Amino acid sequence: MSRIRLGMVGGGSGAFIGGIHRIAARIDDRYELVAGAFSSTPEKSLSSGAELGIDPKRCYGDFAEMAKREARLKDGIEAVSIVTPNHVHFAAAREFLKRGIHVICDKPLTSTLADARKFVKAVESSDALFVLTHNYTGYPMVRQARRMVAEGAIGTLRVVQMEYPQDWLTEAVEEAGSKQAEWRTDPERSGAGGCVGDIGTHAFNLAGFVTGEQPESLAADLHTFVAGRRLDDNVHVMLRYASGARGMLWSSQVAPGHENGLRLRVFGARGGLEWAQEDPNNLWFTPFGEPKRLITRGGAGFTETIGHRTPPGHPEGYLEGFANIYAQAADLIEAHRRGQVPDHLLPDVQDGLRGVRFVEACVRSSGRNAAWVDL
Amino acid sequence: MSRIRLGMVGGGSGAFIGGIHRIAARIDDRYELVAGAFSSTPEKSLSSGAELGIDPKRCYGDFAEMAKREARLKDGIEAVSIVTPNHVHFAAAREFLKRGIHVICDKPLTSTLADARKFVKAVESSDALFVLTHNYTGYPMVRQARRMVAEGAIGTLRVVQMEYPQDWLTEAVEEAGSKQAEWRTDPERSGAGGCVGDIGTHAFNLAGFVTGEQPESLAADLHTFVAGRRLDDNVHVMLRYASGARGMLWSSQVAPGHENGLRLRVFGARGGLEWAQEDPNNLWFTPFGEPKRLITRGGAGFTETIGHRTPPGHPEGYLEGFANIYAQAADLIEAHRRGQVPDHLLPDVQDGLRGVRFVEACVRSSGRNAAWVDL
Amino acid sequence: MSRIRLGMVGGGSGAFIGGIHRIAARIDDRYELVAGAFSSTPEKSLSSGAELGIDPKRCYGDFAEMAKREARLKDGIEAVSIVTPNHVHFAAAREFLKRGIHVICDKPLTSTLADARKFVKAVESSDALFVLTHNYTGYPMVRQARRMVAEGAIGTLRVVQMEYPQDWLTEAVEEAGSKQAEWRTDPERSGAGGCVGDIGTHAFNLAGFVTGEQPESLAADLHTFVAGRRLDDNVHVMLRYASGARGMLWSSQVAPGHENGLRLRVFGARGGLEWAQEDPNNLWFTPFGEPKRLITRGGAGFTETIGHRTPPGHPEGYLEGFANIYAQAADLIEAHRRGQVPDHLLPDVQDGLRGVRFVEACVRSSGRNAAWVDL
Amino acid sequence: MSRIRLGMVGGGSGAFIGGIHRIAARIDDRYELVAGAFSSTPEKSLSSGAELGIDPKRCYGDFAEMAKREARLKDGIEAVSIVTPNHVHFAAAREFLKRGIHVICDKPLTSTLADARKFVKAVESSDALFVLTHNYTGYPMVRQARRMVAEGAIGTLRVVQMEYPQDWLTEAVEEAGSKQAEWRTDPERSGAGGCVGDIGTHAFNLAGFVTGEQPESLAADLHTFVAGRRLDDNVHVMLRYASGARGMLWSSQVAPGHENGLRLRVFGARGGLEWAQEDPNNLWFTPFGEPKRLITRGGAGFTETIGHRTPPGHPEGYLEGFANIYAQAADLIEAHRRGQVPDHLLPDVQDGLRGVRFVEACVRSSGRNAAWVDL
Repeated sequence: MSRIRLGMVGGGSGAFIGGIHRIAARIDDRYELVAGAFSSTPEKSLSSGAELGIDPKRCYGDFAEMAKREARLKDGIEAVSIVTPNHVHFAAAREFLKRGIHVICDKPLTSTLADARKFVKAVESSDALFVLTHNYTGYPMVRQARRMVAEGAIGTLRVVQMEYPQDWLTEAVEEAGSKQAEWRTDPERSGAGGCVGDIGTHAFNLAGFVTGEQPESLAADLHTFVAGRRLDDNVHVMLRYASGARGMLWSSQVAPGHENGLRLRVFGARGGLEWAQEDPNNLWFTPFGEPKRLITRGGAGFTETIGHRTPPGHPEGYLEGFANIYAQAADLIEAHRRGQVPDHLLPDVQDGLRGVRFVEACVRSSGRNAAWVDL
Repeated sequence: MSRIRLGMVGGGSGAFIGGIHRIAARIDDRYELVAGAFSSTPEKSLSSGAELGIDPKRCYGDFAEMAKREARLKDGIEAVSIVTPNHVHFAAAREFLKRGIHVICDKPLTSTLADARKFVKAVESSDALFVLTHNYTGYPMVRQARRMVAEGAIGTLRVVQMEYPQDWLTEAVEEAGSKQAEWRTDPERSGAGGCVGDIGTHAFNLAGFVTGEQPESLAADLHTFVAGRRLDDNVHVMLRYASGARGMLWSSQVAPGHENGLRLRVFGARGGLEWAQEDPNNLWFTPFGEPKRLITRGGAGFTETIGHRTPPGHPEGYLEGFANIYAQAADLIEAHRRGQVPDHLLPDVQDGLRGVRFVEACVRSSGRNAAWVDL
Repeated sequence: MSRIRLGMVGGGSGAFIGGIHRIAARIDDRYELVAGAFSSTPEKSLSSGAELGIDPKRCYGDFAEMAKREARLKDGIEAVSIVTPNHVHFAAAREFLKRGIHVICDKPLTSTLADARKFVKAVESSDALFVLTHNYTGYPMVRQARRMVAEGAIGTLRVVQMEYPQDWLTEAVEEAGSKQAEWRTDPERSGAGGCVGDIGTHAFNLAGFVTGEQPESLAADLHTFVAGRRLDDNVHVMLRYASGARGMLWSSQVAPGHENGLRLRVFGARGGLEWAQEDPNNLWFTPFGEPKRLITRGGAGFTETIGHRTPPGHPEGYLEGFANIYAQAADLIEAHRRGQVPDHLLPDVQDGLRGVRFVEACVRSSGRNAAWVDL
Repeated sequence: MSRIRLGMVGGGSGAFIGGIHRIAARIDDRYELVAGAFSSTPEKSLSSGAELGIDPKRCYGDFAEMAKREARLKDGIEAVSIVTPNHVHFAAAREFLKRGIHVICDKPLTSTLADARKFVKAVESSDALFVLTHNYTGYPMVRQARRMVAEGAIGTLRVVQMEYPQDWLTEAVEEAGSKQAEWRTDPERSGAGGCVGDIGTHAFNLAGFVTGEQPESLAADLHTFVAGRRLDDNVHVMLRYASGARGMLWSSQVAPGHENGLRLRVFGARGGLEWAQEDPNNLWFTPFGEPKRLITRGGAGFTETIGHRTPPGHPEGYLEGFANIYAQAADLIEAHRRGQVPDHLLPDVQDGLRGVRFVEACVRSSGRNAAWVDL
């Protein structure tokens, strides 16, 4: 099977997430990066492309130009990765979707709910595929957890505890030259949510993915601890599910000692599951009335189809989880070549909309003194 | 120094917490148990007393009789441990306090806020001492955490994450003969809070002890998952502090896989601390911008005066933490013999009132759809 | 049942292990300490006794005098705890054993093999009971491990990995005034083994207790790292069992970062078990081809009869494990009062002899360039 | 910089380590796989090559033919990865080395000491580079540990505890069709060591890499537990260093519950370090007399130049560690293009020889009843 011809929007020199997407695409050798609008100026895009070994003719200074030209090329890109700040996602994706080029887009979907709604329509009216890289859903033990919940291992869902603490915004690094911090704390580029949009959405998405349930309302208390910061840096949320389940979410970027502490604990009438991103090859399963069990990637009790690049005990991590998303997107794209539309577990535009709604609801609730609001 | 003559109310055969108090009192050999109203009937009290080697003449069927008679004895008790269900605490304590007998009382203080307020007055108008056994404040690493916060190790307080999950009420064991479950799920004996009163108060008290700050308002979502249960079995609370700090508390008795999972994480502008009751000899200290440090009981960086019965690496646990409360109560009682009233860190009636207020506020907020209420 | 009248040899002010024995004896309230030869001079013994509230007439300056006099008293001691340095154990024990007074003795049994052999005879020719406080065999999860091995949970034994690292002798503290270090590094008082006798024996004993098998030969490389130290401070041993199993033992007192790191891992043809003293309430059980299981004290899968003072999740530790030895010794002594000799799991003089033989064999092997020697 | 043209010997369909090498080479995009002798028959090699998208004309059935032809091609390979069973390494490498093609070779170097010695000469007499993929030396925290030892963080080396337990050979899977098990338990293909050669060498190499010291003698007890197995499956070794340090090594493939449990603990006069492969992003540093510190990849106290693909808290694992070896090999090869020979930390043929000597010494010692033998 020939490699999928891939383009990229964003991800120029110095960017973080673009490099991650490129490694993720390479690990299983299903893609070939052949074009890009890596930066907002032609010069920077060209120099970034040169570092990546991209033909200069296919280094664009503008995503619209790229979409137009690539769509006309005989060997133009089949798919594009969009790895810009949030506010650019929709405008860029639209150009490719309307030309039948598949889109793999970083999260959150958009910086505004209005854009998110338009985004859904743009995807629905396109024949092309759309994948949102909520990458944590690509970790093998997260898939295992989802499967176990779906198979009834924990019984009726009761309690969902989500958390995602980090510490890198403990001080005002956005004022000290950190580009990563700058755009993430800027409402123009990130939207109305800071920490809640950047990482709260990941925790929220993960819980929905694993439990198969979505909350119907929430009460949120967003707070900004660092003086001068324009968006929230600590997020407390209580959630209620239609089924009667209850949830709690904490995300923070001012929690010293936490690097990337995404963690999910779900409890049902018959058992519990616990997973932590910093220890990703392990999944605790705690059936009520039995000893705790530790299920490992590839080990006994692991029944997933992904996560088999290396034997058990040879840790996989963030990049492999991300690569699983890309590999499954490749499966979809190849099926699309054959005219098929298989079932899949990849995050899609509806998940993206849910995430933006979650951010919007948190901001709305918090603005009303943490009143309950519908999701 | 002669041992302190101690009596006990409650703690007859089959009770849990009474036995714990007796071991706690024995470990450091500062008390001698000489009298008791161990049960609500004279016969049971007598047989329980016999098992404990208590003089039958000092086994009472009634705490009032016990208080009256012991107060008149030349070698009557100097202190009494009250280890009954919550609703009896105040009535029993009052009898001893008004006769100048020191009271060591299990938590929560009372089952109603009205009783708690009267309790404060009863203590204030007595010359006798009052200690509430919020035993987790007696763990050496909890003391160490408090000391470090007070000394500025984490800077200005920002975020307080409290949790206390258990799983023993995952099913309706109160209907299957569990006495421990019966009274804890009975509003008559426990008060208006179930899980929130039984263990939520511990987490709340611990956070206040360590941080030295008290929240001023909260929004609580109490829920009962087990059909037929009369009190909450899962507790979600958001909290706000006058200082601007924010907190979150989760306690649950329906979280499979959790035995006694009290855990506290506090974060300030300069660092964080984390302690978990099931791993009590360790304290994580995470100064921002430095490697994480693990401080152990008795090891380097441990600066507390308690926790020295055994060398580092020889685990102490629940009983030793409880014994530390009894040992420090003995210090107070001996000082009282000498006419002194030293400073101390033991939980007192004000802590008890705060705990009952917390329960009451949670119930009130939850009844108003988790509206913010003052504490 | 009346309390057992207990005496103590050693354990004066400033000693470590004597205080531990006293707490262990108190926790379950089965003993009453009434006499002692706490120090080697009458004055010190008297002052130590006074601190402990012992009748001055029963504070002796000499264990022989104590044995003689207590044996004649109507209410003389029924049992004695011997908590002196190793070289005194035998001489002291003999005096009590020959007068029918039960002996609870700290480990290792003696400082020489010759003494150990005489010790066995002294115990065998006495009607009194003898218990050696290899206290780690009193931990509930150690009992659980032993039970599981005996019941076949891991199949035929293959590999035994024992380790016991500490760090408190990393520097020459014996030259800086540490009494604990002084006698432990003194061949006159400790015998020919340093680290191997002090803690290596604990690891060796623990492995024998759990596996039910004893090695038949060993090759040992003892080493002294700290200049001027007269006994070994690091111990490497390979072991062979008659059954074909193989073992390895590391103990060290110069391993920075280890406080009291006793750990045992045993592997059989069908599974494995792992236990660590610093995390004593957990036992890993790893049946081959199944997920790992974590069995907790008092939790699901825990089938032992000890370890029930507190519910699961309320950590017990070193003192409670020690107290379990004392409680079961009390059972034996009470049975002896009734003329019974029940089966039991307490370490006895044969275990003590095995321990001294182990030390002697290690020293012998090491002196012959780690040649294999019989045990 | 153009990608390095890479070939591969071995690594056909169904092989394990070949796929790993290919991912490792791809992650940082420094290589392009363009040729291979993937299997020992031309047909299989061709079909494996087709799966990998290799030009059929450059799929060879024979490494000698491949070396000859590629050396003559204008755009022939610059480097070759050798990922066959051990006994083929030398014969294959020789063909490339003598034609100036750089060799990246899997470990252990050879299956016999004679071959290993010839290998050294072959490398020395070639202008081409040679890298042995002792991949664990590519983990960032292993580099950090090495750096800290070299900088004196733990003081003079005293004790080295190496272990590498696995459980996949607990039963006789080599008789049940496992290809991986077949060749690893076959003396013809693996050499005289089984477990000791397969994984014992990794532990041995890791310790040498981190400490910068090599033992001068050892005493080994190799054992085979599984009936019918032709090579050792459990390895116990004691080691002595010229400096006076002492070591111990345990490797096993019959230790249920262990997937890939490589772990290293080193202790010096001033501190200790501990690293475990299954938790690779963490390194414990235990300076004597200070609290334990946990250094994380990318976090505070991490001073290495590798390990920066992802931010702290985003776990890297086995593949990234392997990729670090490939990335640094690419640095070397590019320097070679420029006529430079920079210093580097990559395992080389001397490390390979040391590993084969270690295996040979273990087998020799074990055959002489674990007598000490020189290394």
